[in-house]
Amino acid sequence: MRVGIVYKYDSLNVAREVADFLREAGVKAELHHIPTCSLEDCGIIVTVGGDGTILRTLQELKNPPPIFGINTGRMGILTHAEPGDYRKSLLKAVNGELEVEEFMRIEARYRDVELTALNEVAILSSAQARLIEYEVVVNGRVIDSMRADGAIFSTPVGSTAYSLSAGGPIIDPYTSAICFTPVSPFRVGWRPWVFSGDREVVFRLKPLRDAVAIADGNRAVEVEAGGEVVIRKSKHPARFFRVESRLKKIAEKMRKLR
Amino acid sequence: MRVGIVYKYDSLNVAREVADFLREAGVKAELHHIPTCSLEDCGIIVTVGGDGTILRTLQELKNPPPIFGINTGRMGILTHAEPGDYRKSLLKAVNGELEVEEFMRIEARYRDVELTALNEVAILSSAQARLIEYEVVVNGRVIDSMRADGAIFSTPVGSTAYSLSAGGPIIDPYTSAICFTPVSPFRVGWRPWVFSGDREVVFRLKPLRDAVAIADGNRAVEVEAGGEVVIRKSKHPARFFRVESRLKKIAEKMRKLR
Amino acid sequence: MRVGIVYKYDSLNVAREVADFLREAGVKAELHHIPTCSLEDCGIIVTVGGDGTILRTLQELKNPPPIFGINTGRMGILTHAEPGDYRKSLLKAVNGELEVEEFMRIEARYRDVELTALNEVAILSSAQARLIEYEVVVNGRVIDSMRADGAIFSTPVGSTAYSLSAGGPIIDPYTSAICFTPVSPFRVGWRPWVFSGDREVVFRLKPLRDAVAIADGNRAVEVEAGGEVVIRKSKHPARFFRVESRLKKIAEKMRKLR
Amino acid sequence: MRVGIVYKYDSLNVAREVADFLREAGVKAELHHIPTCSLEDCGIIVTVGGDGTILRTLQELKNPPPIFGINTGRMGILTHAEPGDYRKSLLKAVNGELEVEEFMRIEARYRDVELTALNEVAILSSAQARLIEYEVVVNGRVIDSMRADGAIFSTPVGSTAYSLSAGGPIIDPYTSAICFTPVSPFRVGWRPWVFSGDREVVFRLKPLRDAVAIADGNRAVEVEAGGEVVIRKSKHPARFFRVESRLKKIAEKMRKLR
Repeated sequence: MRVGIVYKYDSLNVAREVADFLREAGVKAELHHIPTCSLEDCGIIVTVGGDGTILRTLQELKNPPPIFGINTGRMGILTHAEPGDYRKSLLKAVNGELEVEEFMRIEARYRDVELTALNEVAILSSAQARLIEYEVVVNGRVIDSMRADGAIFSTPVGSTAYSLSAGGPIIDPYTSAICFTPVSPFRVGWRPWVFSGDREVVFRLKPLRDAVAIADGNRAVEVEAGGEVVIRKSKHPARFFRVESRLKKIAEKMRKLR
Repeated sequence: MRVGIVYKYDSLNVAREVADFLREAGVKAELHHIPTCSLEDCGIIVTVGGDGTILRTLQELKNPPPIFGINTGRMGILTHAEPGDYRKSLLKAVNGELEVEEFMRIEARYRDVELTALNEVAILSSAQARLIEYEVVVNGRVIDSMRADGAIFSTPVGSTAYSLSAGGPIIDPYTSAICFTPVSPFRVGWRPWVFSGDREVVFRLKPLRDAVAIADGNRAVEVEAGGEVVIRKSKHPARFFRVESRLKKIAEKMRKLR
Repeated sequence: MRVGIVYKYDSLNVAREVADFLREAGVKAELHHIPTCSLEDCGIIVTVGGDGTILRTLQELKNPPPIFGINTGRMGILTHAEPGDYRKSLLKAVNGELEVEEFMRIEARYRDVELTALNEVAILSSAQARLIEYEVVVNGRVIDSMRADGAIFSTPVGSTAYSLSAGGPIIDPYTSAICFTPVSPFRVGWRPWVFSGDREVVFRLKPLRDAVAIADGNRAVEVEAGGEVVIRKSKHPARFFRVESRLKKIAEKMRKLR
Repeated sequence: MRVGIVYKYDSLNVAREVADFLREAGVKAELHHIPTCSLEDCGIIVTVGGDGTILRTLQELKNPPPIFGINTGRMGILTHAEPGDYRKSLLKAVNGELEVEEFMRIEARYRDVELTALNEVAILSSAQARLIEYEVVVNGRVIDSMRADGAIFSTPVGSTAYSLSAGGPIIDPYTSAICFTPVSPFRVGWRPWVFSGDREVVFRLKPLRDAVAIADGNRAVEVEAGGEVVIRKSKHPARFFRVESRLKKIAEKMRKLR
């Protein structure tokens, strides 16, 4: 078994400690500051950082191995352990004694570009403080239309990230759903839509102004005025080692965000 | 095949017309103004009225047969046809040529009373303009707590009913979910929670003031201060004949509600 | 100078202490558990309790003397001092050395009944979980119309009370304004309205269902279906001794309400 | 009397017609496509376009003459007449027989730059989808703090523009107020603040990321990380000829924005 360790720039010391610990346990451990697709061949990935480090890692991986996150950041709802207490459960993970859970990711396809996101794909006006106009289409039917700063399509896991800022609900991560929330819509009558995860949701940009699609605040692609972005569940979920109570973790995050 | 026809007081004429039409087609049709549990033995139920008539009918039925709704009300997102155009598809329904869809209901259990709802269970303070305090508990953990006028636990189908007034999101009816939205919470930091439909959600009323639990705006039970109400998916879903695009119908309802 | 002391049932000891302190200073002090209009003849009123005690006292007074609030409750944004530190500033108040500020109250007139409120007049459906329909009329023009559980008309001081639960903004108490916020409207497109304090705002109940108007959660009057309630600034403001930073106090309250 | 006519590019024909009409009435009329500060010396300004044309014109004018707006756009809540019916009331305006109303503007001062706005000053992150952190300070006290895409400080007139998209209330234009609303705050507990128009409100940007301050979607200035922007009522209000019912116009705009 090969274990890839991805660390945030300020967490190198903890990452080295983890590597030593794994090597002593007879496991091949390699350190990566910048995640690459070569990590797909690892049996397990350990991240040392926050949820951002996990998001950054997953962006590189089409078919990701299970992730074990050691939290050195502020709030980690995706991480499993703190720097002081990871040893026991990491060993169990390495020995295949820890359950693995899958969480849906979404992909956004525009022309021949495909973005994958664990949290959300945000599509925003290219010009600041200038509205875009768009329609949200499901099964060939226009379900909603907006003049807004942008649109967010989020997964359940992503419901407590950018989607929350735009007014979206909190969604149980053990659900299959795509949530659409507009960003600063110039309209008073709207609500977030929670679509079934099996839906294909089309974002149809009106020919007025360009936009940019951003996956997990990171990968971006320009969307030309008049273009269409197709959002759907990715075939390749993210995989995480089980933590005892994710809802409780989310509830704690919410308390901090009040 | 026996068909039960339930009608709203102002739609008796249409209901009689439907009965005649069915009898001519060789089907046993019986008229009910007040729905009773005897309707469970029918092969099909036809309602003539609005969504309210359907809700009222379902309240009586533990294990409901498929429902075919003829809309004589304002907006029907559960109904299938209008008084002028029901014949063709009703015949198909009677002949078993129309697909049947299931939509989850929720049940609320308090002591030995059980309420079933297609839309929502609302738990409200017994004294007007006086707050109740409560906790929402999942898996034995307190996920949220509130001082509020009340709480709404809604199904996806019910997301465009009372839950909407309280600020809830629109949820795809082809999803399994229980949505919790507080009613006028005395707090600025809150969001609706969309729980997986498999969860058991406990409403724990603090020993301050009594409340009343109301299923689909109809059936009510007093909840004593300090009591607990357990909310979960009912084993007995509602069954409706398929309509072409429910999301489109919901989108139209939303347009009218702006 | 006569000083009336109004106390909350659980604060009698502090109230007696205040009375002794005032008598020693040569001031006539009388204790009241239940406030009456006779307090209008006092030079100053001291309340010992929370904001609720102040609201209860003001309800009895058409033309209220300045109020000095000693806080024995949870959060007091109207109070001036805590039980441990009131002496110095109370003496200044008694000696006329403390500035007095006026804050607008609103009155609601229905037929020949008039309610006065420091926080808000809430008009709610008489039947729980049953909508009322109403229009909000200014200068003879319908500004908004709603199907909702109710309506709240609040002062700036009341913006952090019931109005807040319904989704209203926080309004600087040094502003003259009447804020209208619907309670659980069955509509997705709405916003609170902040009217100029000089406006006369008419609540026009549609002839569907009765309602009840409640001033500061206390005084109530039945409003018959089809009735009209006229809301306007009261000629008789509430008067409080100046505290250093009311905005800061409000900001602290908001922090607790998250 | 000199009258300046400012027109939108697509409204030149109407503007010429207005000029001819005024000249026949013996009034000096000059056409401007691009407004400049020379318009300050006119007795009256006529705009032919939408609210945008008025905003663009006011941006150039420190001490603006009264404005008479002829609406050729979609929705004009600042305009007075339509192309077909302006003659009678324009003559009255020119002859001093039409009442003039003043509406507050706000100014934002950053270092030695000063922006003036009729609607709002928006301060947004310079990097898309990257949060800024800031505090809102009044009288030297921190009233609120946010991690958000930005902040909007709006006038009552501007409450139905960008502020509305961010969740702000509708404010009576005959009120003196500065409304603060965050843009997509990464927090669940917040409310818009309606400050008295006499307040000086300081926006304090934390030393994390640069921002840009934009007045009425037009004039912009870079705000360096750590910088402070001071918002207050401008000494120079906008002046408009009176229209019969501004609240009614706003109510109509709201109906269209649902």
